[in-house]
Amino acid sequence: MVNVAVLGYGTIGSGVVEVLQTNTEVIAQRAGEEIAVKYILDLRDFPGDPNADKVVHDYDIIDKDEDVQVVVECMGGVEPAYTFVKRALLNGRSVATSNKELVAKHGAELIAIAHEKNINFLFEASVGGGIPIIRPLVQCLTADVIEEVSGILNGTTNYMLTRMKEEGISFEEALKEAQEKGYAELHPEADVEGYDACRKIAILSSLAFGQQVDFEDIYTEGITSITAEDIRYATAMNKSIKLLGNSWRVDGKIYAMVCPMLLDNAHPLSGVNDVFNAIFVRGNMVDETMFYGKGAGKLPTASAVAADVVDCVKHTGKNIKILWNPEKLTLSDLGDFERQYFVRMPADAEAKAITAAFGAVEMVSVEGINEKAFITGVMKESAFNEAAEKAGHIINRIRLD
Amino acid sequence: MVNVAVLGYGTIGSGVVEVLQTNTEVIAQRAGEEIAVKYILDLRDFPGDPNADKVVHDYDIIDKDEDVQVVVECMGGVEPAYTFVKRALLNGRSVATSNKELVAKHGAELIAIAHEKNINFLFEASVGGGIPIIRPLVQCLTADVIEEVSGILNGTTNYMLTRMKEEGISFEEALKEAQEKGYAELHPEADVEGYDACRKIAILSSLAFGQQVDFEDIYTEGITSITAEDIRYATAMNKSIKLLGNSWRVDGKIYAMVCPMLLDNAHPLSGVNDVFNAIFVRGNMVDETMFYGKGAGKLPTASAVAADVVDCVKHTGKNIKILWNPEKLTLSDLGDFERQYFVRMPADAEAKAITAAFGAVEMVSVEGINEKAFITGVMKESAFNEAAEKAGHIINRIRLD
Repeated sequence: MVNVAVLGYGTIGSGVVEVLQTNTEVIAQRAGEEIAVKYILDLRDFPGDPNADKVVHDYDIIDKDEDVQVVVECMGGVEPAYTFVKRALLNGRSVATSNKELVAKHGAELIAIAHEKNINFLFEASVGGGIPIIRPLVQCLTADVIEEVSGILNGTTNYMLTRMKEEGISFEEALKEAQEKGYAELHPEADVEGYDACRKIAILSSLAFGQQVDFEDIYTEGITSITAEDIRYATAMNKSIKLLGNSWRVDGKIYAMVCPMLLDNAHPLSGVNDVFNAIFVRGNMVDETMFYGKGAGKLPTASAVAADVVDCVKHTGKNIKILWNPEKLTLSDLGDFERQYFVRMPADAEAKAITAAFGAVEMVSVEGINEKAFITGVMKESAFNEAAEKAGHIINRIRLD
Repeated sequence: MVNVAVLGYGTIGSGVVEVLQTNTEVIAQRAGEEIAVKYILDLRDFPGDPNADKVVHDYDIIDKDEDVQVVVECMGGVEPAYTFVKRALLNGRSVATSNKELVAKHGAELIAIAHEKNINFLFEASVGGGIPIIRPLVQCLTADVIEEVSGILNGTTNYMLTRMKEEGISFEEALKEAQEKGYAELHPEADVEGYDACRKIAILSSLAFGQQVDFEDIYTEGITSITAEDIRYATAMNKSIKLLGNSWRVDGKIYAMVCPMLLDNAHPLSGVNDVFNAIFVRGNMVDETMFYGKGAGKLPTASAVAADVVDCVKHTGKNIKILWNPEKLTLSDLGDFERQYFVRMPADAEAKAITAAFGAVEMVSVEGINEKAFITGVMKESAFNEAAEKAGHIINRIRLD
């Protein structure tokens, strides 16, 4: 019998307890041992909860109990999660966490401690909720040089963009709807400004390229500037607008960014709608693969954490090797990367001035929108920015994938 | 340094050698040791090939060389692959194979030998080519009770159905095109009759439910009866026709089948086109997940085999537990399963007779096709078959997912 302590009895933490207590039998079969929840650490009490007797308020109780073999961390945020997780690992306990902030910030260090102690630090649920993506990157695509990871990593914004496309509603209306449904928070910045996606692509990039990618270095643009008109243009061009976390390697240079992108409707990510997430991975041998599922939600996320607990138990006394070098990877300057752009300018913008700034462009028109809209040729981002400066007032611009 | 022997130097076998020799450095990093190809077993010689000196014609040479730690089997077919693989395992060598016939037929036995010998028998490439699906089922979704596995498991038929939809062409024209492109063989039965998909869903079902599912027990229907008219109806109903390998659990009963299905266009599998494959997995906690990628092709498939070799090396002296009980699982009678059906009858079929046979139906019409077509209510397959008998001549019927 393996005893687990769960830190944080919020949505995910209580979900992990539910998964372990509901699927006890299959989990024991796969882990080779029964897994039981011994402690739940939370500041609150939960009178009436069937697990109320397991709740403790002091981490020391868990720390001192040598019967605890695995610690599950679902508190969120960097502190005190970091302190507790580090203590657990230094004390020889394997840890499973769903905490993207913790992993993005301290993943490399915690992986190194687990390696040294011959235990495990696993974090499948920190990206993509229930979707297996960390394990596929680390343990499945091991014969490939990874060339690109692109993902719809935030369910809230994907729901909003889906509703804007389906109903023609504005960003503000979509946000209100997402808040009413409980998908978006009252203060939705972490989602709509792309901060959540940024931490997740930082984790995926660190794993894909085997080296620390700091989330602070990743250029991040959210969806707050996307309007109903942008969506109408996208539909007219047979494209979809998706908020993507992206990282890719070209000629030995590695780039990363989070921003709304115009994807062809034939791209497998373009059909990923509502609160679903998906991560597209391109390797030099396997070519394109994609992993799809519920990127959030209590039980899907908890399922991923519980699977990590199973792996911790199966690998007792054996470290699962995760290549994540703590030395910081210097991302290349996005200004040098070449792509096409979709641009909207006022109706009175002159064709000559547009061509003078951007070179040859392909005009796009949508009935009822009186503007000059176009797609540029392939150009460096730095050249595009200069051209945009020169061209005058730009209503919006969206990158093409 | 770990030495590998590759059995079969055809498309996949030569791909595995290429992957191991191209990505040598990252593979060594991940495996923790360098991996080298020492032997290639094939009946043919390959003069001029850079690996010509590694070719042997007699398995005994490999069997007797104690320097060979991992055997890669890419011969296809049950014999002599089965004999060689069993000898390798009994001799203490881990085996990675891409051979679906071998795994569907003898998987349970070979897994048991590997378990007993504390080595590994891995077969990621036997289903879905480069798509990680075996490892996700066995090692990722370990906290879930699996309730459904549905997949587009055959790239050739998916290409044909995609072309029929895009171009309005017939089955015969699509087959000819697939043959010209090298996707379909001259004798295309294994693909178009669903036999290939059947072996693959047998493997996935055995893993999902932890018990031997015999492919001979799986009801299998190919796409040979799908016509351009069926596709036009599907499009008019905002659905797609896909050849699915399916297995699912309802009320403790397990069903499995291979057949063309009408999927809503909102279903994540409906957007999987061309030669791509995808496997949809539903668990009681994680809900819906999907794994997408190139289901065939030299390098994608070889990438999966090579990743298995990496896992064999990483797990030297440690068996990766795979739950696949050799006791045969008795599939439930499909006649008892309830679903809706799309039915096409001649124009002169009387509404009264249709209702008398099938109960209330929803009529479907497409311009230019003079028929009586409809969707039935939810009914047992046995009841549907009786009704169809009673109703008279049926042009075609397709199950709704």
